[in-house]
Amino acid sequence: MLQFLSSALGWPPILAETIEIIESPEASTLILVSVLLGLVVVYLASKLGGELCVRVNLPPVLGELLGGVLVGTSVLRLLVFPSSGAGAEDVVLLNFLQQISGAPDNWMPTIFATQSEVISVLSEIGVIILLFEIGLESNLDELLKVGTKAAIVAVVGVAAPFAAGTLGLIYLFHIATIPAVFAGAALTATSIGITAKVLSELGRLNSPEGQIIIGAAIIDDILGIIVLAVVSSLAKTGEIRPSNIVILIVSSTAFLVGAIFIGRWLNPFFVNLVSSMQTRGEVLVVALVAAILAGLIAQFVRLEAILGAFAVGLILAETEKGEELKEQVKPLADVLVPIFFVVVGAKTDLSVLNPADPVNRAGLIIAGFLLVVAVLGKVITGFRLVGSSTPLNRLAIGVGMIPRGEVGLVFAGVGASSGILSESLNAGVIVMVIMTTFLAPPLLRLAFRGEPTTAVEPGS
Amino acid sequence: MLQFLSSALGWPPILAETIEIIESPEASTLILVSVLLGLVVVYLASKLGGELCVRVNLPPVLGELLGGVLVGTSVLRLLVFPSSGAGAEDVVLLNFLQQISGAPDNWMPTIFATQSEVISVLSEIGVIILLFEIGLESNLDELLKVGTKAAIVAVVGVAAPFAAGTLGLIYLFHIATIPAVFAGAALTATSIGITAKVLSELGRLNSPEGQIIIGAAIIDDILGIIVLAVVSSLAKTGEIRPSNIVILIVSSTAFLVGAIFIGRWLNPFFVNLVSSMQTRGEVLVVALVAAILAGLIAQFVRLEAILGAFAVGLILAETEKGEELKEQVKPLADVLVPIFFVVVGAKTDLSVLNPADPVNRAGLIIAGFLLVVAVLGKVITGFRLVGSSTPLNRLAIGVGMIPRGEVGLVFAGVGASSGILSESLNAGVIVMVIMTTFLAPPLLRLAFRGEPTTAVEPGS
Repeated sequence: MLQFLSSALGWPPILAETIEIIESPEASTLILVSVLLGLVVVYLASKLGGELCVRVNLPPVLGELLGGVLVGTSVLRLLVFPSSGAGAEDVVLLNFLQQISGAPDNWMPTIFATQSEVISVLSEIGVIILLFEIGLESNLDELLKVGTKAAIVAVVGVAAPFAAGTLGLIYLFHIATIPAVFAGAALTATSIGITAKVLSELGRLNSPEGQIIIGAAIIDDILGIIVLAVVSSLAKTGEIRPSNIVILIVSSTAFLVGAIFIGRWLNPFFVNLVSSMQTRGEVLVVALVAAILAGLIAQFVRLEAILGAFAVGLILAETEKGEELKEQVKPLADVLVPIFFVVVGAKTDLSVLNPADPVNRAGLIIAGFLLVVAVLGKVITGFRLVGSSTPLNRLAIGVGMIPRGEVGLVFAGVGASSGILSESLNAGVIVMVIMTTFLAPPLLRLAFRGEPTTAVEPGS
Repeated sequence: MLQFLSSALGWPPILAETIEIIESPEASTLILVSVLLGLVVVYLASKLGGELCVRVNLPPVLGELLGGVLVGTSVLRLLVFPSSGAGAEDVVLLNFLQQISGAPDNWMPTIFATQSEVISVLSEIGVIILLFEIGLESNLDELLKVGTKAAIVAVVGVAAPFAAGTLGLIYLFHIATIPAVFAGAALTATSIGITAKVLSELGRLNSPEGQIIIGAAIIDDILGIIVLAVVSSLAKTGEIRPSNIVILIVSSTAFLVGAIFIGRWLNPFFVNLVSSMQTRGEVLVVALVAAILAGLIAQFVRLEAILGAFAVGLILAETEKGEELKEQVKPLADVLVPIFFVVVGAKTDLSVLNPADPVNRAGLIIAGFLLVVAVLGKVITGFRLVGSSTPLNRLAIGVGMIPRGEVGLVFAGVGASSGILSESLNAGVIVMVIMTTFLAPPLLRLAFRGEPTTAVEPGS
């Protein structure tokens, strides 16, 4: 209310205090120190979790997620974000920092918000680098070859859980149509980051299954964004505006097709440019600029930045600089990608799993239903494929599509903030997202068990 | 005034608006996009400037600084920081972003402040990585061997410009003692980042001259921090508290000696640890955590974080993982270090060089005097060295100590904000810092001209 009043009265000095705190040299130093402390926590969590998981034959990325849960909101609270509802006083490291620095109390909310935002931006840059690297490691021709299969997997994997989830919520749980449609929509989009990372760790990225999963996950991501636009406008206005949806479909198709054609046409220019440059890091920096620009264009047409970075990686892999680029992007990915997975884990609030709270009990029952639909709705996708010339691991394809990750959380976040989802339905969606995200890595390893790998693990 | 009132009344909701803006998903996306746009500008500026400078036989780092000036506060205003007094409405890219996103006006100051802070933190991480890499490329035994020479160069290089500057300002310019002492103190500390980068680019880092310069610059940095503590307390209270100075001297000596002894003792532990790890990027990530922790300890004893990172690089270079680490840190440095130099350039306000403003005219005359003292006071340091077994390029050693860079700007900032320095004296100090920073790279190349290099340029 005060916030509304102050913005209605248009008081610029109200913003000034926080901004002056951000800008003062002492606070800047504290922000830097708090970010560095945050990064130490991130790396300890990622390596501790990753190494433990490797030793019990689980994918390291699961360890990074679990390490994030350990240091995050749910357990140790070393790495906490304001979106969890926490204040600066809840963060152990910031209290410590305030005590040794003697910073005034009224600085701490600003330092907390800024530190969280810096680490969030670093984690976003991390997932952009991850998709750029996955693009570099993928093969465009292979991906186009499996294009039809990937499209079938994607469409089935969106339609099946959406229909089963929505109808189940309406008829089994007697939930009203709009919230049921919204929760059903949250079941659609696969989190490409987690699946791609696990495939890469298993050495399966360039297997036919791996390429189908990646291709389907990309199409899925686009379908998910369209579904989100549809259900959001349905929830807001009670009706669907077809023009918006047509624009989204046209722009995303144009983006992907355009990226491939324009990218291939620009490839000789890229090689000539970096070959003529004489300063350090010319290949990596120019490629990154291209990836960032493509990410910005993707964001501009309302897709995700990671799709642009993936497309640039895919295209640059075809140039004679591709191998050099793969080598150089590795250390960058080693440093930035763990930030993304640890932050995803740290932001996960496991308190929704606590059955002592009655809202959670209702939520857990709904979650059980949503989880079954989420898993089965994707697992069947592989078995929809017919007429493959090579024998495919159909189970692995379906399992690879299971994790909902951050995309599912976006649905939950939009649903909760707009009041469409009831508390228990929201808790159910969050539990479903948590379970699919954490179950997929070990399940995918199981699905591939016993088969020889087709590629070496990158960086091993 | 309003700001003072609001904090005196202790209204937490006043901070809440800005913090809620930072936390909203739409604003978070805008912050990410603005950071990505900022990074594109940084890389274009660094590569454009760097490549042009290489072609006219100047060090690339000068090009990065000049590229930063071009895109920064002084010229194109694509990359502007609130510390320059600019508001969000002065930043071309943010105006563009607001137009295409339709973000409300009251969001823009927060987005501007947060974007600037994220890029500033990235540039600080960049200079930490730079000093870590410089440490890896340096040789601890060589550095200890030239220790006495480095100490002589450092002490002479602090004492001579401090004495000549202070006395000159008092007797030639009739400036009061305390501001004269303050401006004299701003002449003392060498910017290790710029010099080390130029030495590395010239392939001179491991020459005897290079190691003396690096050693002297480190001691210089510590002396500079002590001088700053002394003159700040002198300016604030009119007297000097010897206990503080003793604590600073003891803690900084203990830090450097302790880092070397404890570091060497921990080296086998580091090698064992990373050898037993099985996840990606284990060497680089563990080394970075060590560098960050040492940087935090350095910050805690009131030194700079870069000294800790340098010490860790120096020590880890001695392990069997040193070569692997050097290879892996290169791409990371290629991506992060340019942010630092471009930001230094972008923050440089060339308007103090405009003689149309009367304050600047007085400042330019003082600047001329300070510049002569700043250059000569450091150039003589090499010639203070006697009895070297090998012939040394004494001119190059002195020239290597010339750039004042960010350390000098800290003096100017503290002096101006505490009201000690008059406007013209402040302008004079800033011009001196700009000139020494931009003159040093080409002068150092000149001083080394005609001699064969002793090492290959890293990354070439």
